[in-house]
Amino acid sequence: MDRRSFLKTSALGGSAVAATSLAAPAVAQGTTTLTMVTTWPRGLAGVWDSVERFSNNVSEMSGGSLVIDAKGAGELVGALESFDAATSGQADMYHGADYYWVGQHPAWAFFTAVPFGMTAPEIMVWYYAQDGMALHHELGEVFGIKPFIAGQTAAQGGGWYRKEINSADDFKGLKFRMPGLGGQALAELGASVQNIPGGEIYQALSTGALDGTEWIGPWSDEKLGLQEVCDHYYPAGFHEPGAALSVGCNLEVFNNLTPEHQKIIEKAAADAHQHNYAVFIANNGPALKRLKDGGTQVHEFSDDVWDAFGSASKKVLDGFMGDEIFAKIRNSVDSSMAATAGWVSVSDGAYTRQRARVTGA
Amino acid sequence: MDRRSFLKTSALGGSAVAATSLAAPAVAQGTTTLTMVTTWPRGLAGVWDSVERFSNNVSEMSGGSLVIDAKGAGELVGALESFDAATSGQADMYHGADYYWVGQHPAWAFFTAVPFGMTAPEIMVWYYAQDGMALHHELGEVFGIKPFIAGQTAAQGGGWYRKEINSADDFKGLKFRMPGLGGQALAELGASVQNIPGGEIYQALSTGALDGTEWIGPWSDEKLGLQEVCDHYYPAGFHEPGAALSVGCNLEVFNNLTPEHQKIIEKAAADAHQHNYAVFIANNGPALKRLKDGGTQVHEFSDDVWDAFGSASKKVLDGFMGDEIFAKIRNSVDSSMAATAGWVSVSDGAYTRQRARVTGA
Repeated sequence: MDRRSFLKTSALGGSAVAATSLAAPAVAQGTTTLTMVTTWPRGLAGVWDSVERFSNNVSEMSGGSLVIDAKGAGELVGALESFDAATSGQADMYHGADYYWVGQHPAWAFFTAVPFGMTAPEIMVWYYAQDGMALHHELGEVFGIKPFIAGQTAAQGGGWYRKEINSADDFKGLKFRMPGLGGQALAELGASVQNIPGGEIYQALSTGALDGTEWIGPWSDEKLGLQEVCDHYYPAGFHEPGAALSVGCNLEVFNNLTPEHQKIIEKAAADAHQHNYAVFIANNGPALKRLKDGGTQVHEFSDDVWDAFGSASKKVLDGFMGDEIFAKIRNSVDSSMAATAGWVSVSDGAYTRQRARVTGA
Repeated sequence: MDRRSFLKTSALGGSAVAATSLAAPAVAQGTTTLTMVTTWPRGLAGVWDSVERFSNNVSEMSGGSLVIDAKGAGELVGALESFDAATSGQADMYHGADYYWVGQHPAWAFFTAVPFGMTAPEIMVWYYAQDGMALHHELGEVFGIKPFIAGQTAAQGGGWYRKEINSADDFKGLKFRMPGLGGQALAELGASVQNIPGGEIYQALSTGALDGTEWIGPWSDEKLGLQEVCDHYYPAGFHEPGAALSVGCNLEVFNNLTPEHQKIIEKAAADAHQHNYAVFIANNGPALKRLKDGGTQVHEFSDDVWDAFGSASKKVLDGFMGDEIFAKIRNSVDSSMAATAGWVSVSDGAYTRQRARVTGA
């Protein structure tokens, strides 16, 4: 994306609010059914869990009066057409990762992940106790969407490499898969960044079309078989320190729901966020152990590599600061992170260091 | 409490399941009203927030067909009588900290906090994605209670001291307020441990009846004015690394609710847990900064003090391992913590260290 051209046509331009003439959910025998398109193949480990959990809870809390009909990617529209489907009223809502919509507005990235951004617990603080949810709604309103975060992969791994990374120079010319603003930062380091769907990663690494990739975390990565085609794994990454998933409801559809159905959607989404975080963390630890036992070599990037990640990330984020909404949200995120870290680093941080030292746990 | 005598009369004894003949919520004009007693003075910063949020969400999600009538401590029964009120059917449910019920069974402590136990994010993993909630229900069933965690103070501070703590010996004879199993551990170090209600702490410190206290965290502690009577504050503590609050519904009352009302209670509780965590963290950082700016001296305990906390905590927890339920829950908690830390320490842990180093955030 050419950032300058984006800024000219951005956000508040005339075409942003989509036609919603199609927006009318199916209502039969007292049951309202919302068609939800998703950016995920049906059943994809971890992320589809949050789709199912959200949908089941909506149905159960409403006593069956509100039902979500969730569609896997490609069943109604393609994965990345989900946003347009929800804004146009072709579908009633979507479930996806909002950073897929950075072509609509780069600030959508903040509601999934930005490089050197928030961890999952920090996202909880910002979203539920500070300005996060209100800013999400403010951005959504521009596009005719009512969004709520509704899933959380927790910190995504630094990724898989066929060769060890010893310095930032090793990224020059490296064919690496990384989406979002993190990918743009890696391109600043000279990487040849490619965005290919999850289902094609294994093949691309096997043939040498890719030299490395990030995907999600040990649990999901193991299911893709990445340990079979890359020997080196870096658990800590800079690009998605916490990654929220979201539902976005067509705004007209949402506004026409009863207040109790609106509240049920909001709370089912919040539940899916917390639960999905728990599911990923619960599975990542044992998966990392299995990977190590299976021979994967686990590393941490050196300080100079992290420094390079930091400079590149700052450059990418700074490049969007001419956009008012982007700047407002970035400033909110940064001040929230600083305030949270001021307590967490000296309480949880000191505690977990001491617990590890004293008990080995 | 004499641990041996507890074990003789514990858990599965005949008196555990209370009479529930009184258990029948008020139903009028299609609205079911549940009377909820709480262990909190009405309006207490942070913790009452989770009471209100839970209650409002139940009402809003049910379209007013299920209403929670929340009572502050002392309005219907005293704070620590809340459990008995809910088991006997005098009230329909309680909101409180389950470690107040360790006299009923020591395993209740795991659903608030135990020394050297789980951080708040670790509790999320164990409770929502592993065995935590099922074990909570298993313990609750013994007493005729359906419990759900429904609030979270996050890590509680190591506490306030009139004199700096330079070694574990400084706890000998120290008159210190600390409830729960953490307090029992401090007693092992020779402290004179006292459990007095929050409202009396300031006075006790002023008169010298106490030499120090823990309360919750900077936000709540500042409201009590503890910085006026103690100069030294230790943000990191061993006793409540994460502290969940819970609702517990009379089991017969719960089982007679409609499936949608049951699900609404479960999800309103989960929402209150995540939201309350966010609220405490959001407020603790700025409060700690104000305390420092106001002259409070902030310290971290030395390694040898942490070692002493570790030995004493282990001794206290080991003392209950003859109880089958306690042992089962402790083992579940320990294996969950180890698995979670195996991933989080090398992903989030490494990331937050690097972020602090690279960006200063």
